[in-house]
Amino acid sequence: MNKTISKIKVRYAETDQMGVVHHANYALYLEVGRLEWLSSLGFSYAKMELDGVMLPVVSMSIDFKKPLYFEEEIKLVTNLKSTPSAKIIFEYDLYNQKGELAASASTVLVFVSTETKKPIKCPAELRDAIGNLNT
Amino acid sequence: MNKTISKIKVRYAETDQMGVVHHANYALYLEVGRLEWLSSLGFSYAKMELDGVMLPVVSMSIDFKKPLYFEEEIKLVTNLKSTPSAKIIFEYDLYNQKGELAASASTVLVFVSTETKKPIKCPAELRDAIGNLNT
Amino acid sequence: MNKTISKIKVRYAETDQMGVVHHANYALYLEVGRLEWLSSLGFSYAKMELDGVMLPVVSMSIDFKKPLYFEEEIKLVTNLKSTPSAKIIFEYDLYNQKGELAASASTVLVFVSTETKKPIKCPAELRDAIGNLNT
Amino acid sequence: MNKTISKIKVRYAETDQMGVVHHANYALYLEVGRLEWLSSLGFSYAKMELDGVMLPVVSMSIDFKKPLYFEEEIKLVTNLKSTPSAKIIFEYDLYNQKGELAASASTVLVFVSTETKKPIKCPAELRDAIGNLNT
Repeated sequence: MNKTISKIKVRYAETDQMGVVHHANYALYLEVGRLEWLSSLGFSYAKMELDGVMLPVVSMSIDFKKPLYFEEEIKLVTNLKSTPSAKIIFEYDLYNQKGELAASASTVLVFVSTETKKPIKCPAELRDAIGNLNT
Repeated sequence: MNKTISKIKVRYAETDQMGVVHHANYALYLEVGRLEWLSSLGFSYAKMELDGVMLPVVSMSIDFKKPLYFEEEIKLVTNLKSTPSAKIIFEYDLYNQKGELAASASTVLVFVSTETKKPIKCPAELRDAIGNLNT
Repeated sequence: MNKTISKIKVRYAETDQMGVVHHANYALYLEVGRLEWLSSLGFSYAKMELDGVMLPVVSMSIDFKKPLYFEEEIKLVTNLKSTPSAKIIFEYDLYNQKGELAASASTVLVFVSTETKKPIKCPAELRDAIGNLNT
Repeated sequence: MNKTISKIKVRYAETDQMGVVHHANYALYLEVGRLEWLSSLGFSYAKMELDGVMLPVVSMSIDFKKPLYFEEEIKLVTNLKSTPSAKIIFEYDLYNQKGELAASASTVLVFVSTETKKPIKCPAELRDAIGNLNT
């Protein structure tokens, strides 16, 4: 199962004057989720960038279903949607501390060479690591 | 025309170590755009909240087409998509300083009573102001 | 010992185009530290606010000694400087993953009534909890 | 007079659940102020970085005197404190929309070579531009 679960505690600074987490901050949570997914495969995104591979987000879509509050511990489920090629697609479910679905999201990222800034294929090591998980 | 144009200068803090604006910050730009749209109709969102109406975002979708860089002046076009009812839908086009389309986005917001936290209809004054623009 | 240790992992979004954590984000780390300090005494800041006590920051000073990098696990030591009265003063040391001192900071906060927005004394329960720790 | 005045409109996302601008965001305002100061001398910080000079903040100190609110237009006065050498020191006064002093701050930055990451002297062109202003 290409899925990881992240626990994230809402920071005070992430709230806005509606008294809930400001919607822009969900993008930070999703990023934490997919980088923990990468770590769970034994990959460090910091090292990937040093090795010449960047992963910019090319599209992001979020449905906000219930507000999140300061000091809640969020459970974020990050799911790889399909075998990555030039793109890598993640789906996310975010649960509030009561266990209710608070948001669903998806992001598409592309592999880019840090040197040429051109799109490249998913690195073979990453594809291999994912393949092993699937079987 | 229910459209406004906002000029936003990229702040240094909005960049990340890829050397471009971090994708989470686009949500801040869109928010600036729709609040300027509201101002252009003679409405202050600050006053709306004091009057008991909140406008939380219930969905957001962004396509990132070209990176944005520090010190660029962005042109953000904010468009009301249809006559608001319980929801209000905006579409956005973000142009980089060269005038190229850098991102497209849409957001759905709902009118909520600050007192009851329940959904309410678009305030009549806002619907009237929009109506006048359409004719 | 009125001291707590927090572990914070640097998020990608917290970096800037210099390739290090943007200095504004240190304020977020300090906030995490002092709220964990409060939790360690059995206090929830979320509950304090509901009970009518806010703790705005009235001064903050940070010395940045070494850069912090994406994916580092930071160790933040939060220290209560003296018995709180109308003010509560914290001092902080932030260590990078190598264990080097990366930043030192201090903040002064004041107790304010959420209702009257006027300064108030440190709540007796908090003073008692601190007192017990000292002896 | 080595002084510039910046106008900054408070963004909704900059507020927190106390209903005021979160203190971490003042650092973003100060950054806008000193980069506008640099622009006023005919310098672009984006170009400085490309030319191999970075300006990391080594210390920052802020006194928060009055809260700032969403939609306020802030007036930020940025002052060069003395002729820069290896360091450059700025002092700031931040006024709310009523014209009241809302915060005072100072920052120390150092000139660093982007290549060697070592401290360097203030670039001669910048020193010259400042010198001309003083006379």
